[in-house]
Amino acid sequence: MIKDLTAFYSKNALNMKRSEIRELLKVTRQPDIISFAGGLPGPETFPVKDLEDISCQVLREKGALALQYGPTEGEFPFRQEIAKWLNREKAGIKPENILITSGSQQGLDIVSKVFLDPKDIVILELPSYIGGLQAFTAYRARMIGVPQDHEGMRMDFLEKELERLAKKRKKPKFIYVVPDFQNPSGVTMSLERRKKLLELVYQYEVPVVEDSPYRDLRYKGEAVPAIYSLDNQNHVIALGTFSKLLSPGLRLAWIIAPTEWMDRMIVAKQSMDLCSPTYTQLIAAEYLRRGLLPKQIENIRKVYGRKLETMLEALGRYMPKGVEWSKPEGGLFLWLKLPKKMSANDLFPKAIEKKVAYVVGSAFHCNGKGQSAMRLNFSFSSEQQINEGIHRLAEMIKENM
Amino acid sequence: MIKDLTAFYSKNALNMKRSEIRELLKVTRQPDIISFAGGLPGPETFPVKDLEDISCQVLREKGALALQYGPTEGEFPFRQEIAKWLNREKAGIKPENILITSGSQQGLDIVSKVFLDPKDIVILELPSYIGGLQAFTAYRARMIGVPQDHEGMRMDFLEKELERLAKKRKKPKFIYVVPDFQNPSGVTMSLERRKKLLELVYQYEVPVVEDSPYRDLRYKGEAVPAIYSLDNQNHVIALGTFSKLLSPGLRLAWIIAPTEWMDRMIVAKQSMDLCSPTYTQLIAAEYLRRGLLPKQIENIRKVYGRKLETMLEALGRYMPKGVEWSKPEGGLFLWLKLPKKMSANDLFPKAIEKKVAYVVGSAFHCNGKGQSAMRLNFSFSSEQQINEGIHRLAEMIKENM
Repeated sequence: MIKDLTAFYSKNALNMKRSEIRELLKVTRQPDIISFAGGLPGPETFPVKDLEDISCQVLREKGALALQYGPTEGEFPFRQEIAKWLNREKAGIKPENILITSGSQQGLDIVSKVFLDPKDIVILELPSYIGGLQAFTAYRARMIGVPQDHEGMRMDFLEKELERLAKKRKKPKFIYVVPDFQNPSGVTMSLERRKKLLELVYQYEVPVVEDSPYRDLRYKGEAVPAIYSLDNQNHVIALGTFSKLLSPGLRLAWIIAPTEWMDRMIVAKQSMDLCSPTYTQLIAAEYLRRGLLPKQIENIRKVYGRKLETMLEALGRYMPKGVEWSKPEGGLFLWLKLPKKMSANDLFPKAIEKKVAYVVGSAFHCNGKGQSAMRLNFSFSSEQQINEGIHRLAEMIKENM
Repeated sequence: MIKDLTAFYSKNALNMKRSEIRELLKVTRQPDIISFAGGLPGPETFPVKDLEDISCQVLREKGALALQYGPTEGEFPFRQEIAKWLNREKAGIKPENILITSGSQQGLDIVSKVFLDPKDIVILELPSYIGGLQAFTAYRARMIGVPQDHEGMRMDFLEKELERLAKKRKKPKFIYVVPDFQNPSGVTMSLERRKKLLELVYQYEVPVVEDSPYRDLRYKGEAVPAIYSLDNQNHVIALGTFSKLLSPGLRLAWIIAPTEWMDRMIVAKQSMDLCSPTYTQLIAAEYLRRGLLPKQIENIRKVYGRKLETMLEALGRYMPKGVEWSKPEGGLFLWLKLPKKMSANDLFPKAIEKKVAYVVGSAFHCNGKGQSAMRLNFSFSSEQQINEGIHRLAEMIKENM
């Protein structure tokens, strides 16, 4: 028996943290709990029938290909379909700019592996996506948080930070942003800020990692151009995914990058899993080829748009004075702030007693702050559950005010 | 434009190598080339019809589950089925000992991430599996090769190496072995050596990583117990996979480990891809539940057994004196040695001229040796192609002797 396991672990492994969310999910899977904690798509949006039909066709017509190993960068016809799909946003994106990944989390892992040595600096939003924090933590990066407001990351703070670092002859390896309906806050970065961000990264010569899983899930208001589509100096690596548009169970996402950045990322992926599932890639490629995605997205927008409205209405109806929340125009999440003296962490067990769950705001802060906030997901629960769950949550908050 | 990309890369990224094999695959995909270079299963062995039927059933009956995110450690019913399957070899393996991975390559990446800091020592066979070398290289491990003979890794050399390291107060993080029909050599480690290996790792307190993708593909002779099944001191982490039994395109493999080793590996996987594809996990679970695997393996054994025979016969018929090759009892590969003065690397372009391909032996050596050897795959080509390809290869060798 090996006595001291920790003596065998790498420094990175000792530094890794379990995602509080994924741990929470286990508790919140109890059937009587209404969970706003996860980030799961509503299962009623999955196009099960289409995927059944396409699965059969793929195996019938291309079984030998679908069940075989494929190229590390992804099946070429799939990358072609994705490039075509992205050309709506930016002309000139080619299959050569697309690397298929096993979910966006693998995109984050690849980017981390390729860029981050221990103590390297990553700049990100306060709050930021927990899977990003987790990936960067696993490489022992140093994370510097920049505050955001209702227009996204504050560019005045970012500029000061870049200036401060430059004076110390330090440079971040990249700036990580989730600009559309951010997870966790629901905030969308304004066009002005996006342009300013590019100005700053051109000036300071820093790459941007733009992680945008919810971009196409806008329920009202006007779309803002993707940062990578505004970039004309090859500074942006963008992450996209089918997890929120089609199905996370297929594990299909992509990295969009200038071709000169591709080589190291492909080599990194080769050592990580050789290739993403050929079978599900061919299924998604055929789904795109049949032109089914736009209608699917329209359907999701309707379903989630109604759920968002339901949650906003319930919040207005039940929440006591002093509680505030974001009003996102899309995505899967909104951000609720308790009066400053209250702690979402302390209240969590009481919420579970009331059979309702959320994720504590501090989980999304690289600096440990955010104690008085919580993230609420509105895509997974039914409208009835949303109404009832917000009611329970409001009662619990009132009782503890 | 960012002028010096390499200034942004991590030390690990700068150290990564492209797999020579996967690069070769691109060349050897030309339809008139007979390729013994890859390690692909024969597509005629894929149970396409069964998988079509099961895909439909899974989506029809469990669509909402199959298309959703799943737990990082894998779908519980799938881990149950795998545990049941492994209980043939070792009683007491439970779902808690199984971590589902996206192919065995991810298993290697997880093990590397959890254990390896730069300069940490990994002991492995000479030659060894290229995907292992690649994974360890990506973490800048120091690899120490131990020679093998027809019974596998030489335990006398291993013992000396462990002794030498212990004197310098150094300890390998693990010993990596591919004990069954090794890729690339085709060698199987004898029972005696397996027992001696365990004795040594108990004495020196070193974990073993047992990578065994071909274990069930034995075409003659008697099975040798898996090392993990002989281990009663929790020293072995074993990697298994469906890639060679069912289909690599589903990207499904597993790590078998003592429960106390599991936690860090699960946390590592969480930051790498959240979970493996739920859809293909449920497909494989149902495939196992229906009891289809034993017959499938029997079929593969017949097909590959014949192909191996065909290759051995062709080698005997065509190869000139001075050329030697291994006579594996299973797996996908055999190892061919040219007369010492000849270089498989130098001959490679000439083989391509003759429209036949192999992988050079040096690609499998952590010390750069193996120049006079090559790896030949016999699972992918048809029997006719095998005969013709070996004929071409022999002609080329004769011409250059």
